[in-house]
Amino acid sequence: MQPLTSSPAYQALQDAYERLRHIPMRELFAADATRFERFSCAAAGLFLDYSKNRLDASSLDALLALARERGVVEARADMFAGAVINRTEQRAVLHTALRNRSGAPVLAGGRDVMPEVLEVLARMAAFVADVRQGRWTGYTGEAISDVVNIGIGGSDLGPLMVCEALRPYGHARLNLHFVSNVDGAQLTEVLRRVRAQSTLFVIASKTFTTQETLTNARSARAWLLAAGALPEHVARHFVAVSTNAEKVAAFGIDTRNMFGFWEWVGGRYSLWSAIGLPIALYTGMDNFEQLLAGAHAMDQHFRDAPLENNLPVLLAMLGIWYVNFFGTSSQGVAPYCQYLHRLPAYLQQLEMESNGKSVQMDGKPVEYPTCPVIWGEPGTNGQHAFFQLLHQGTALIPVDFIAPLRAHHALAEHQLLLLANCFAQTEALMRGKTPAEVRAELSAQGLSGEALETLLPHKVFGGNRPSNTLLMDALTPQTLGALIALYEHKTFVQGVVWGVNSFDQWGVELGKQLAGKIEQELRSGQIGAHDASTAGLMRKTLAALG
Amino acid sequence: MQPLTSSPAYQALQDAYERLRHIPMRELFAADATRFERFSCAAAGLFLDYSKNRLDASSLDALLALARERGVVEARADMFAGAVINRTEQRAVLHTALRNRSGAPVLAGGRDVMPEVLEVLARMAAFVADVRQGRWTGYTGEAISDVVNIGIGGSDLGPLMVCEALRPYGHARLNLHFVSNVDGAQLTEVLRRVRAQSTLFVIASKTFTTQETLTNARSARAWLLAAGALPEHVARHFVAVSTNAEKVAAFGIDTRNMFGFWEWVGGRYSLWSAIGLPIALYTGMDNFEQLLAGAHAMDQHFRDAPLENNLPVLLAMLGIWYVNFFGTSSQGVAPYCQYLHRLPAYLQQLEMESNGKSVQMDGKPVEYPTCPVIWGEPGTNGQHAFFQLLHQGTALIPVDFIAPLRAHHALAEHQLLLLANCFAQTEALMRGKTPAEVRAELSAQGLSGEALETLLPHKVFGGNRPSNTLLMDALTPQTLGALIALYEHKTFVQGVVWGVNSFDQWGVELGKQLAGKIEQELRSGQIGAHDASTAGLMRKTLAALG
Repeated sequence: MQPLTSSPAYQALQDAYERLRHIPMRELFAADATRFERFSCAAAGLFLDYSKNRLDASSLDALLALARERGVVEARADMFAGAVINRTEQRAVLHTALRNRSGAPVLAGGRDVMPEVLEVLARMAAFVADVRQGRWTGYTGEAISDVVNIGIGGSDLGPLMVCEALRPYGHARLNLHFVSNVDGAQLTEVLRRVRAQSTLFVIASKTFTTQETLTNARSARAWLLAAGALPEHVARHFVAVSTNAEKVAAFGIDTRNMFGFWEWVGGRYSLWSAIGLPIALYTGMDNFEQLLAGAHAMDQHFRDAPLENNLPVLLAMLGIWYVNFFGTSSQGVAPYCQYLHRLPAYLQQLEMESNGKSVQMDGKPVEYPTCPVIWGEPGTNGQHAFFQLLHQGTALIPVDFIAPLRAHHALAEHQLLLLANCFAQTEALMRGKTPAEVRAELSAQGLSGEALETLLPHKVFGGNRPSNTLLMDALTPQTLGALIALYEHKTFVQGVVWGVNSFDQWGVELGKQLAGKIEQELRSGQIGAHDASTAGLMRKTLAALG
Repeated sequence: MQPLTSSPAYQALQDAYERLRHIPMRELFAADATRFERFSCAAAGLFLDYSKNRLDASSLDALLALARERGVVEARADMFAGAVINRTEQRAVLHTALRNRSGAPVLAGGRDVMPEVLEVLARMAAFVADVRQGRWTGYTGEAISDVVNIGIGGSDLGPLMVCEALRPYGHARLNLHFVSNVDGAQLTEVLRRVRAQSTLFVIASKTFTTQETLTNARSARAWLLAAGALPEHVARHFVAVSTNAEKVAAFGIDTRNMFGFWEWVGGRYSLWSAIGLPIALYTGMDNFEQLLAGAHAMDQHFRDAPLENNLPVLLAMLGIWYVNFFGTSSQGVAPYCQYLHRLPAYLQQLEMESNGKSVQMDGKPVEYPTCPVIWGEPGTNGQHAFFQLLHQGTALIPVDFIAPLRAHHALAEHQLLLLANCFAQTEALMRGKTPAEVRAELSAQGLSGEALETLLPHKVFGGNRPSNTLLMDALTPQTLGALIALYEHKTFVQGVVWGVNSFDQWGVELGKQLAGKIEQELRSGQIGAHDASTAGLMRKTLAALG
């Protein structure tokens, strides 16, 4: 394959960029009455309006041509077919199998993975029913009131984000808690709020060796025992999402309560597997299956829809357009929905861990920027915090606005204001406010002369700042599943275009290695070979911790 | 004053950048055994190690020269002296007066503001004692168990971040809740968890007209009344942080329970004022005053220390170094402390709303980038999410690591691991791992030939990625106060260097205007003049909401 930057479509896009870089979107809207219909698209319960982008028909065509040239169509087929597309780890990538509701087999290495997938789902369903219906009890015979998920990264952010998003579907008796950080403060605060006899811990670690998770799990077990439980009670209060039966059993967990997953599921793509157990416990197995169904609907759309109507492909190529041609380096995410308050953090991991790479699949360095920083906060909060910079800062930052139209509560006044604000922000970012408009406004307010001239430049908005708007009728397990799958596939498509492996994460290893060494040395008090800064920080630590 | 980019120090810095851009920090450490001592600095209970930056003595000198040329020394004096430095709004900037513990007067417009500041603090102290000691009761005579702060932006993020940070200091009987978003989901979820007869609402809005805050306040009042309280009980369950006595009284609040602040306090600098009432309620007035004292210590340091030992100036100029010379566009914040989990969001507002500007104080456009995107999550969580990109992505992203050495809990094992990980990340970012090092490691693991060569490039870390490390002995009200003030003054210094007004926020206005129009139209069902996208989104909304 040609290098990205010398492919014909890339060249065409450079020309398109030169043509479009100075054209205000206002003009694009003025020139085409059908722009909204032309640049919007719906699938799997989601509606994407991408008309507020610095795009015309021919640049969109060139973006889709680039996707084709880079092999997106073939890579997509390879992924669904279970090919070993995670080549640096020699693995297939089949999170789509976890939510395959079609009844059709899914092959990995020639073997149908669906029987195992369905078997774990069935075991999850039985366990979930026991806990929710109060048949599963703690060591004193009390039903479970609190579930504490102990996991980190993909074993935390996915279930956490989804449980927060689906609060209206939560079980009335069950409180969910998430402990991820090795900072003992997080576990301590959770343990203050729960009672040993009615608390269930879910320990989520594929290898059952993750440092943070096992440290927290051991402290949680010690707390349970200190509260009066006996060692044989551990199995009533701890279950595992893991594949390491030996270590799980050694911890004191009954391996019948160990829920596994597979090497073809990456951590950040794993909420559809047993890693989603907290979601199923909290919202019920039916709702968990609706989540899977929503993702499956998006999978089918992604696999089958032509690129020009393909939501993940469109989102991906718009991202490429800004990163590789407009030179943007971050992407905002603004859910106008408080229940989605952890979506930005979830997408941050999904995209940045997948595509924050500098080396192509074949080992050659990339010669262009790859994944931008993904960040954001819910609207309307963000409007009162950082939106100042989005409107008047020096950088161009595209933003995805995400809004369910109907709310789960009855405060209609609030919902109308919420949506009005969401749309107004996209309008303001696109339109801006010209010096002439500011002048007219200030004059109407009675300003003139120097007072007016002094203030005027500060009140001008350059506008022409792009955004996508994603709407859904309401935030349900199904639309949420589709939304997450949309971003998963967006991430995949971008990885293919950039030529990187979206499914490894070698970049987390060096820090782990060095942490192990530093930990040993802090423990022994013998500081080894480090740069003067690291050694100096360690000396300060030893002095403080005595 | 000369334009930034043609000042002599700026030119010197461009030369320094050309000299340093290819030099690995490893070499800088190797060349100077005193680098850690030379590039570290302590004040007000905080220790800053900035030796892991792409900096040498002469570039640091040039950065400080740039600060001087840009008038940082004079601007600093002007701020503390109460000069009208927020010129577009014709206001002084005196959040430092709110925490002035020196007994000395602080003048604004020739008048000492301290008597008013101290008077409000005294009224807060009396109210706080009443609530905490159970003398202030709800309408059935029950002591307050839950405090719900209703405010947004600066009236939310500051108190929220601090209350989370100071959980170990929280009152055993009081639960704190924060409602900011106009999305009714947030209020609904809070109201599910509290009881009307023991809940106190703090309504924080300077003008008492903020749309989100008043919408939430009215719904909270309706809930109280629906729960059985009578209109005359509203004053027992609602207090205000505001200056609009008329509207506060009309709402049903006794104006004796209205706590004011002043036009010389910007929203994002206001947690030191009555906006901090939830902090004082939760942690007690003594701890709130310790917070003020910590900030005051940092104020004195900032005002008096020479630039070369001045923490806020050093942090600010390092930021300028990366943004304006290395071309970075975002700044990571990684608190290795779960209690500081909202610090990144707080700093996001502080810096981005202050300096996300494109126009200089005098109205001329800036010709250089200003504020970067500020973002982050606590460590160690971030390590399992987006740190992949920090280590191996294509962009250079400086990171501030922040860690208290001693914990508030007794899980010593956790704390050691937490700190080891923090230091290891700074070491890994700086050192990287060379192809030769990877080769040796893979060989030692038994790999060779094509298997080794294929994997090798994926396991290389370029390194040379900068970070600051900020340590404190423990996270206390005092060190937290100093930490926040440090970033406030960093933000101020950067604003001065960039020549922007850090204290206005005109960029939030256009969205508000347009939201008002859209809201009216959605309410009436009559869609007015908009671009096709905004109109299309509104039509979808009307169809869904019927």
